[in-house]
Amino acid sequence: MAKDLPTLEDVARMSGVSTATVSRALNAPKRVRPETLARITDAVAQLGYTPHFGGRALASNRTFTVGAVIPTMENAIFARGLQALQEQLSAQGVTLLVSTSNYDPDEEAAQVRALLGRGVDGMVLIGEARDAQVYTLLERRGVPFVLVWTWRPDCPWPCVGFDNAEAARAMAQQVLDLGHRRIAMIAGITRGNDRAAARVDGVRGALDAHGLSLPADRLVESDYSLEAGAEAARRLLAQTPRPTVILCGNDVLAAGAYAAIRDAGLSVPADISVTGFDDIDLAHVLSPGLTTVHVPHRRMGEAAARMLLAMGADGAAPDGVALQTGIVRRGSLAAPPPG
Amino acid sequence: MAKDLPTLEDVARMSGVSTATVSRALNAPKRVRPETLARITDAVAQLGYTPHFGGRALASNRTFTVGAVIPTMENAIFARGLQALQEQLSAQGVTLLVSTSNYDPDEEAAQVRALLGRGVDGMVLIGEARDAQVYTLLERRGVPFVLVWTWRPDCPWPCVGFDNAEAARAMAQQVLDLGHRRIAMIAGITRGNDRAAARVDGVRGALDAHGLSLPADRLVESDYSLEAGAEAARRLLAQTPRPTVILCGNDVLAAGAYAAIRDAGLSVPADISVTGFDDIDLAHVLSPGLTTVHVPHRRMGEAAARMLLAMGADGAAPDGVALQTGIVRRGSLAAPPPG
Repeated sequence: MAKDLPTLEDVARMSGVSTATVSRALNAPKRVRPETLARITDAVAQLGYTPHFGGRALASNRTFTVGAVIPTMENAIFARGLQALQEQLSAQGVTLLVSTSNYDPDEEAAQVRALLGRGVDGMVLIGEARDAQVYTLLERRGVPFVLVWTWRPDCPWPCVGFDNAEAARAMAQQVLDLGHRRIAMIAGITRGNDRAAARVDGVRGALDAHGLSLPADRLVESDYSLEAGAEAARRLLAQTPRPTVILCGNDVLAAGAYAAIRDAGLSVPADISVTGFDDIDLAHVLSPGLTTVHVPHRRMGEAAARMLLAMGADGAAPDGVALQTGIVRRGSLAAPPPG
Repeated sequence: MAKDLPTLEDVARMSGVSTATVSRALNAPKRVRPETLARITDAVAQLGYTPHFGGRALASNRTFTVGAVIPTMENAIFARGLQALQEQLSAQGVTLLVSTSNYDPDEEAAQVRALLGRGVDGMVLIGEARDAQVYTLLERRGVPFVLVWTWRPDCPWPCVGFDNAEAARAMAQQVLDLGHRRIAMIAGITRGNDRAAARVDGVRGALDAHGLSLPADRLVESDYSLEAGAEAARRLLAQTPRPTVILCGNDVLAAGAYAAIRDAGLSVPADISVTGFDDIDLAHVLSPGLTTVHVPHRRMGEAAARMLLAMGADGAAPDGVALQTGIVRRGSLAAPPPG
């Protein structure tokens, strides 16, 4: 369906300069005199010229695009971090292209291949768990990549994130300190999602250290949606004795749990406490406010952009960046009800 | 930074078939015998082969990618519609690449050029208001595009959306029917955002029909964030007499207004009513629930995908698709307080 495309030569002819000058204007505009740059910019706009991927990549090995594959756009979990990543890249003239995998490892691998096929200069992927072939592909192509939303001391790849297990452990510890013993958890689907699995591990670790366990009937895995979170909470609320607290794998699940608790005629935190993970807008607007793990989404996105740009510039493998999470105490977590 | 890339020939050699068979396996896998397809798929994975954009596009004029430029990923406004668009495209083997413009028309134009430079088969853009050069560029390139989140009877481009003005007018009409007369509005920034502007027009239209107006001090434009929405609401709450209702340009602004109202020691809806627009998760979890305009985000995304795929197939200019919005009544809207 493509028509004849305007060329670099067409732009040069219309603006009365050499193709080298046009090329310089597109790649390093500060090195071109303002009036010349204005003429070239006008010609580019009038002709509808866009730098041809092939030629530009061959000329400079750079396409000035970075690809990111995220599990979903359906909720706001990844929104703020991605936005910060995009803004930081954009400030350096790099366009971020995002695609989604629906939490499906095969789909993620396909999206990585599609983005590599579009000639991205770098890639951002969420978490660490994926088929070794994806890592092999990225390394064989020599395309720098950064893993985000995850960090652990011995991660073999460049990562910018936080210790999901440790953050969940700290939250479970607070819950234990308040006297809770009948502790339930609504986790994300752990298969193929190392962040969800690490959060379960963290909760288990805190309970183990107190001689407690997380029995199978007190752990429900759930899609990350309000509706699924509410359904998972209904199953937990039907148990006798009822759990005194529900630790949720993220804030969306916690918001679903609030709805189920309200529908059951119970109240947060008088009858049952709830905690979340992420500290997205939902956590602020729930009533009572949600006690949750604050994830520094903006700093994570910015740090990932900086790391990726540095890798593109010098090719060295950087150290991972570990960001601190914190627990934000709001009204949803209190001591368990008596009895 | 790119190393020597594996070629179609490498894949053919390793899997013991012709390059034509490899090409068919990549473009129409159902036309290849399962055992042959498995051999080729293995070879593709082992070699880390990805179809080369240039060759593939020249061979078939299709890159099996669609680009979307959205204003922001920072909140969940566009999340559900984009996700539905992505799922529908993905079911047809098409990858959606999303980039963001930060509500900046120049930035949007740059992102459109970047995506065209990556060789997308089609584009999805939000709303109708943009520089004519962007439309000229898209038409000159012969790349099909669909506008979403907007629909009006005489829109000259293919659009899938809803009548923003009419939806806002209907909400304002409900507010008037309940007896409100001191009506305020927190709108999105209208410059360069035809959806935000249309929602203001709709509210004005309903008030005009009742001989009322929306004076300048009762209309605050605000960035779409919780914090900015709260700040805008504080300005409105400081007025004497106070408005009895705040119509918000979207649910994020409404959530911000709730926070400001609570901080002022007032209650929704006893002291002041609040309405939203979008019906995203936030609207469900606010307490009381938010009365808002329900936008059929999933159906809009799916319809946009179908339209784009049909345009790609036959090149005909389709009719626009107008989806119905509806008002969801929850607890945040009541009659004005006496006096």
